[in-house]
Parts: sequence; C-alpha cells; structure tokens
Amino acid sequence: MAEKYKPIAIFDSGFGGLTAVRELRRIDPTADILYLGDTARVPYGVKSADVIRRYADEAVAWLTKQHVAAIIVACGTVSSVALPSLKSSVPILGVVEPAARAAAKATRSGKIGVAATPATIRSGVYAPAIARYNADAEIISRACPLFVPIVESGRTAPNDPVAKVVVADQLSELKAAGADTLLLGCTHYPLLSDAISAYMGSEVTLINSGAEAALALSDLPLPDGGATRGGTLHCFVTDAPEDFNQYSEMFLGDLVPDSVNKIWLV
Amino acid sequence: MAEKYKPIAIFDSGFGGLTAVRELRRIDPTADILYLGDTARVPYGVKSADVIRRYADEAVAWLTKQHVAAIIVACGTVSSVALPSLKSSVPILGVVEPAARAAAKATRSGKIGVAATPATIRSGVYAPAIARYNADAEIISRACPLFVPIVESGRTAPNDPVAKVVVADQLSELKAAGADTLLLGCTHYPLLSDAISAYMGSEVTLINSGAEAALALSDLPLPDGGATRGGTLHCFVTDAPEDFNQYSEMFLGDLVPDSVNKIWLV
Repeated sequence: MAEKYKPIAIFDSGFGGLTAVRELRRIDPTADILYLGDTARVPYGVKSADVIRRYADEAVAWLTKQHVAAIIVACGTVSSVALPSLKSSVPILGVVEPAARAAAKATRSGKIGVAATPATIRSGVYAPAIARYNADAEIISRACPLFVPIVESGRTAPNDPVAKVVVADQLSELKAAGADTLLLGCTHYPLLSDAISAYMGSEVTLINSGAEAALALSDLPLPDGGATRGGTLHCFVTDAPEDFNQYSEMFLGDLVPDSVNKIWLV
Repeated sequence: MAEKYKPIAIFDSGFGGLTAVRELRRIDPTADILYLGDTARVPYGVKSADVIRRYADEAVAWLTKQHVAAIIVACGTVSSVALPSLKSSVPILGVVEPAARAAAKATRSGKIGVAATPATIRSGVYAPAIARYNADAEIISRACPLFVPIVESGRTAPNDPVAKVVVADQLSELKAAGADTLLLGCTHYPLLSDAISAYMGSEVTLINSGAEAALALSDLPLPDGGATRGGTLHCFVTDAPEDFNQYSEMFLGDLVPDSVNKIWLV
C-alpha cells in the first residue's frame, strides 16, 4: 500500500492566503491542500510583533498536528515578523525570500517599491532580503493599512471610487519615486492588481508574494514516493464558515473547497 | 474608614471606547475609570456573533474580577450582539438603549439613520429599540465597514481625501433617505463627526452612542457612600501599550491615563 500523501498547509491570518492556494493548484493540480485562516483574529498586520508571534505559534502548532508535509506561511505579516521563531517538525516556507528574489530579478531600473502591512514595513525585512539577490537595488517601502479593509469589503474594481482614491493615496510615494517593480507584500493585495496597475501604469511589474511562495515550494525536497494524491482542498477557519464561503469565491475563482470547518486555536 | 470607591469599567474592542471615557470624565470629573480595550483582537464588528460573544464573555469575566462598580460596554458591536448573554455580578450597561432613546428624542422628521458595523446592522437591534421610544420613527440602517479602518489610520479630517470619499460612499443612502438624525452606533465613528457633518449637512443631529451610555450611567443606583474618589484613569489593553499611547491622544484629547498595562484575556 502506498504511503499516505501528506497535504501542503497554507496559513494566513484570514482569506488573503487563498490567492496562494489558487497559484499552488495551478502549478500542481493534484496537490492536496489544507488551508488555515485565523479569521477570528484577522487582521494581523496592524498588531504588534509580540501578538503576531503568539498567534502564529498557535497556528503552526495546530497545523503540525495535522500531519502536513510542509507549511507555507502565505501571510506577509507573519513571514516578516515571526518566521525565524516558528517551530515545527516540517519545513516552513514564508513569502519574504521568494518575493524578494522575484522582485530583484524583475527590476530593470533597480527601483523596487514594497507595499505591505504596517507590521511588515516596520520589520524592515525586505531591504536586506532583496539586497541578497540584487545589491544595487534601491528599495522604497510604504505601509498600506487601508488595502486589507477595502479588499475585505469587496471594493477591488479599478473603477470603484473607494478603491481608486485609496490606491492613489497609499501608493503615491512609490509612484513618485519611479519604481518599475512593485512587490505586493501582503496576500490580500493581488486582489487589487487591476486597480494598482491602473494607477501605477501597466509597465510596472507587480510581484504577488503568495504566488511566489507557492512556486518556491518546488525547491523543497518533499517526500512523495508514489503516494496517492487527491487534489483536495480542505479549509479551516477560526470564525464562521459561512463568512468564508462568502469570500472564498473572490479569492479562489471557480476552485471550490471540499470542506470548510471551524476550529478554535486557543 | 470610608469604603473603597470602586471604579467604573469601560470596555471596547479597541480604542473607540475612549470617546466614552472622555464623556464620563466630563460629566463626572472625580469618577475612577478602568478602561479595557481588546486591541489584540480588534475589530469585532466584522466578525460573527459567536466569536464576538466569546471575546466579550472573556472581557467581562476579567473586568468583574477587578472589583468594578459597573461595566459600560462602549462597543456598539458587543452591545448589539452579546449584551443579553453577558454574565456579571455588577450592572452592565450597553450603548443601544441610551443611543436609541437619544435618537428617538432628537428626530423632528421621524427619519433616523443608523450607521454601525456589519455585525450591529445584522443584529437588527436598533429598530425595535428606537420603536420603544418613538413608535412612528422610520429607521434606515447602513453598515459602514470602512469607518473603523480609516479612523484607526488617523484619516479623520473632513478635508482628508480618503475620509471624504469613504464617508460619502458609506452614507449616501442615509443622506438620500433624508434622515434628520444619524445614530453613530460604533464608538469609533464620533472621530469622524466633522467629516460626517460636512457630508450629511450641519442640520443633521449626530448621536454619539458611547457618550449616551456614559450619560445613562447616572440612571444606575451605584453605591458610593462617601468613599474616596480619585479621578483616576487606568487602562488595560491586550496588545502593545506603546500603540495605545500613539492612539489615545486622538480619542482622549488632553486627558492622560495614569497607567497603561497589557493583559492577556485568554
């Protein structure tokens, strides 16, 4: 009997990490995926490093108990603030390294903008990460605290009046600085890609950090050995599953979870 | 020796309840106040009733152990969703009844707008509460999920481009309906009073739910008996106290807390 294939876990503070689920499904259609969104405590990005680390520890402990093969931390905030202190018996992959590498490769002018949550920007993690791949790159960072709320309110269309004014407000410095590459350091932000491109200009390359982490999974030596793979998607949330169903379509498109269940992390 | 005076507790999901602190201090300069803001899990207003009740239970249990005289639930979301199920040995006062009464009294046209969080609007608590004081009033309700994030980002000035577009967006139906009284059912919203008045028109009466709850405290028969009152303000938060200090001025004006300490509720 073939060894039971272990699923890949994807963890986020809320729904944003579903953009990484979609990317992982695209590049590996038969991977089994277990998603955890800490929707009862979202957002993480406006909270302190201390609280973010505590929440992430609890989530990773729970995921490790589910016998997953690896954990992708799709949350930009957790990846920036808590990754080095997370403990698990399975490999943990964050978004910072893969996104930094992709941005360093993409830039032609050498000017890279980083748009992320206040906690991620405060952590200062991207400048040294990008410098490891491109020592001459100039990094301009900007916290965008209003992007998550407008995405979670479904205000993502490029002609939406709220999306337009908020995108212009939060990205004006990055545009003025002339960045040719914009690293979207939070998994919610790709939902605003159309609005962001409309403002920044279509010649600016957008880096989707959650998608880059999903792509980087192939760098990991994961045991697979002919095990059965079902292409399943089982989702767990800490708040009401009904709310999850309302949001998941926005993030997942036509990918439908096999199950959505509620758990308490504490 | 005089009996030790017990403080009045004011509880909110985050910083918004400090608007009630300011009002209570104004009407009772020597009241001792104990403030609790669950800043590690804010916001409550976009979460499910189940999660809101659990968080509120934990907060009220902690406050009851602090030997307070009464608890004002300044959080509109908790007041709407969880108040009947909260258990304490001391009186608990929410914002719904006091705010509904004030709005019912203030209206001349009989058209009352209610602006609050999604969870409060979903609870449907305001229509019957207002009807108890004014059976003929017409109630128009609107969830304003973006008000808390813009207040927490400090975007409250009436000429702020983000505040302007968000206020107009979230209140357009209430303005079109011709409400002459607007009940601000979340304690964050009074910080946007200037921007809201600029949009709705200065003839529209704004009802500050947290302030109404502070005023209603005088309805409660609280034992006082010549005890010493110090006019102190001790604050407790569940996330970093440093962040509290950054925000408290916006909400408290020149009122400075005697202490700010961090606690874990779980």
